[in-house]
Amino acid sequence: MSALLLRDVRPLGGAATDILLHEGRIAAIGPSLSAADAAIEESGGAIALPGLVEGHTHLDKTAWHLPEWYANSVGPRLEDRIENERSWRAATGHDAAEASLALARAFLAAGTTRIRSHVDIDTDAGLSHLHGVLRTREAMAPAQDIQIVAFPQSGLLIRPGTEALLDAALAEGADVVGGLDPCGIDRDPVGHLNAIFALAQKHAKPIDIHLHEPGEMGAFSLALILDRIAAVGMQGRVVVSHAFCLGMIGERERDALLARMAALGVAIATTAPASRPVPPVAACRAAGVTIFGGNDGIRDTWTPYGTPDMLERAMHIGLRNNFRRDDEIAIALDCVTNAAAQGCGFGEYGLTPGSRGDVVLVAARSVAEAVVAHPARKLVVAKGRVVTRNGVR
Amino acid sequence: MSALLLRDVRPLGGAATDILLHEGRIAAIGPSLSAADAAIEESGGAIALPGLVEGHTHLDKTAWHLPEWYANSVGPRLEDRIENERSWRAATGHDAAEASLALARAFLAAGTTRIRSHVDIDTDAGLSHLHGVLRTREAMAPAQDIQIVAFPQSGLLIRPGTEALLDAALAEGADVVGGLDPCGIDRDPVGHLNAIFALAQKHAKPIDIHLHEPGEMGAFSLALILDRIAAVGMQGRVVVSHAFCLGMIGERERDALLARMAALGVAIATTAPASRPVPPVAACRAAGVTIFGGNDGIRDTWTPYGTPDMLERAMHIGLRNNFRRDDEIAIALDCVTNAAAQGCGFGEYGLTPGSRGDVVLVAARSVAEAVVAHPARKLVVAKGRVVTRNGVR
Repeated sequence: MSALLLRDVRPLGGAATDILLHEGRIAAIGPSLSAADAAIEESGGAIALPGLVEGHTHLDKTAWHLPEWYANSVGPRLEDRIENERSWRAATGHDAAEASLALARAFLAAGTTRIRSHVDIDTDAGLSHLHGVLRTREAMAPAQDIQIVAFPQSGLLIRPGTEALLDAALAEGADVVGGLDPCGIDRDPVGHLNAIFALAQKHAKPIDIHLHEPGEMGAFSLALILDRIAAVGMQGRVVVSHAFCLGMIGERERDALLARMAALGVAIATTAPASRPVPPVAACRAAGVTIFGGNDGIRDTWTPYGTPDMLERAMHIGLRNNFRRDDEIAIALDCVTNAAAQGCGFGEYGLTPGSRGDVVLVAARSVAEAVVAHPARKLVVAKGRVVTRNGVR
Repeated sequence: MSALLLRDVRPLGGAATDILLHEGRIAAIGPSLSAADAAIEESGGAIALPGLVEGHTHLDKTAWHLPEWYANSVGPRLEDRIENERSWRAATGHDAAEASLALARAFLAAGTTRIRSHVDIDTDAGLSHLHGVLRTREAMAPAQDIQIVAFPQSGLLIRPGTEALLDAALAEGADVVGGLDPCGIDRDPVGHLNAIFALAQKHAKPIDIHLHEPGEMGAFSLALILDRIAAVGMQGRVVVSHAFCLGMIGERERDALLARMAALGVAIATTAPASRPVPPVAACRAAGVTIFGGNDGIRDTWTPYGTPDMLERAMHIGLRNNFRRDDEIAIALDCVTNAAAQGCGFGEYGLTPGSRGDVVLVAARSVAEAVVAHPARKLVVAKGRVVTRNGVR
């Protein structure tokens, strides 16, 4: 049976209606639908959301799957955390395939059907993380799409051999070229951008660059990135992740950068951390910049926090941006649905006929409640098939 | 039967042991305890925590108990929110007894056995909120202690008649004198402090003052409060709630204020909001200042966020303070256990023989996991009796 009828759902909290899925897609949305051979799910007025989108995570790093709690005693600097992770992996024989599969399944159980995952490529791990996440991608393909960013976590120019590994990763199936702090880590911003834009052009792939750099340094790197996009014609093909600098510089300078980003179609991925300045979601959207959400790492050597639940991430986005009104919380939800699909380039997206059959049902009175309470999903439908019910596969 | 034996628990994540409760208190902690007539709970190595403490909430304001979702469309200013709440109450006939009872029960189900609640006293509501929360306090007394702060939410001097109402509230059973933004709301800091310190002296009650005022204005008000404490000898009797200014001024000025606060025994209540500057927990503790946690309002006209789960609040404190290491997350837990009991003056507290028999069991591998995952409580024991099991009464 390939048809599925979701009866009595409220798309995005609106009026009750039905959704018919057929051959992996949304076939129709409307009241009192019927289909002779469809399986029927009575939904009891649950809110229907499109499949949730994780726009920035690191599936390969997680300790989510391990029986033992990872006890964190790492130092405070970025360099401490990078080094701690490398030594932990070496000591434990970390298996990126097993790790990423456990986390991807947990994401799916909570209704996330599309994921952009950065995957570490470095001279210690080589392509082993890529190979692990490629296996997970294949295993999850019947229900979930995973985009892979080839990510030079340990630095690119400062660690010779990394550039060739990124090149190989892109040849072997990575979807996106990653970058990292051109000034702060690689200490040579022009050299860093030369490398990643050359890889992007060679493989005809988009770019997603981690930019943690604070204040004026970050704004400088960001401006260099924008100059380069204009110079090589990569409009609409670049995401800047974090972009903390946009929460630290003056509003006039920030808005000038946002205007350039909007004109060049550059999107922002934000994890909305509580302890750091962030790009303000409202200002980004007002400027016409697509901004979307992600967890960053989940339960790994970097952080004990994070959950594979994008409604909870929407709550954090709401909290960080002081979104209190229902219309504001709808924006937080947009950051993990439509805006994320647009920013990452996931197609056939949304609660519309013809879109892929990814529907998430949440028992809540309003979209705002779905976000702030983020109860276990009542039903998750992926590519037209029920994959989890009340949080259970 | 008045004895209860919790077998195979791990106090604060330590080695497995037993806890014996008798006549409402912890009678003994040690391996292989026995008691002839005790009810026995096999705990399976769950982590045992002392009863959790909510150090700053507003039980009377919540919409937690209502069948309909409260759809928020309020404006951005503090004055907008105060006025919106007053008009919502007038329109709906808000019942503070029913509201506070529902929320207090939910707190208890998640292991919170002590609560400090601010309760609105104003010229519209009169003492009706106080009377409602007094009823809830009485109903919950067999399992939970509720401290009531008589709180002039709508202003004190700017709303004549409020001071007399606060006086009456303290005579009728409020435990603590509340205050609010001496400059920012009442526009007369010395006059405001004259009023609240006079009430405190008259009724021999401590003070808990909301201080939202930013930057230098907040630091000015805080210094006036400290001067007054020294002048009238109220050392160890005052809490400053929020104290956002301590996250906004220079570190040298901040540390000078913290040193004075430590010397005067002034504690800080923090809700650790993601969207505002906050007093840094580590700096406060390093200075010797007790800092503890609370939700602030929960699902009310001010905010759709918050849950009656103090382990989740500890997570937010950890996130806001960038606590990643296990030893740091233990500090976040301390903010909703020992530090909160000390800051609010709840006695007979802790996992020690002789303390009140409030024990919370959490199925987690470590204290850090109990905080970041905050699963439904396995068992809640209050005053020696089991009150909830797996989150259910």
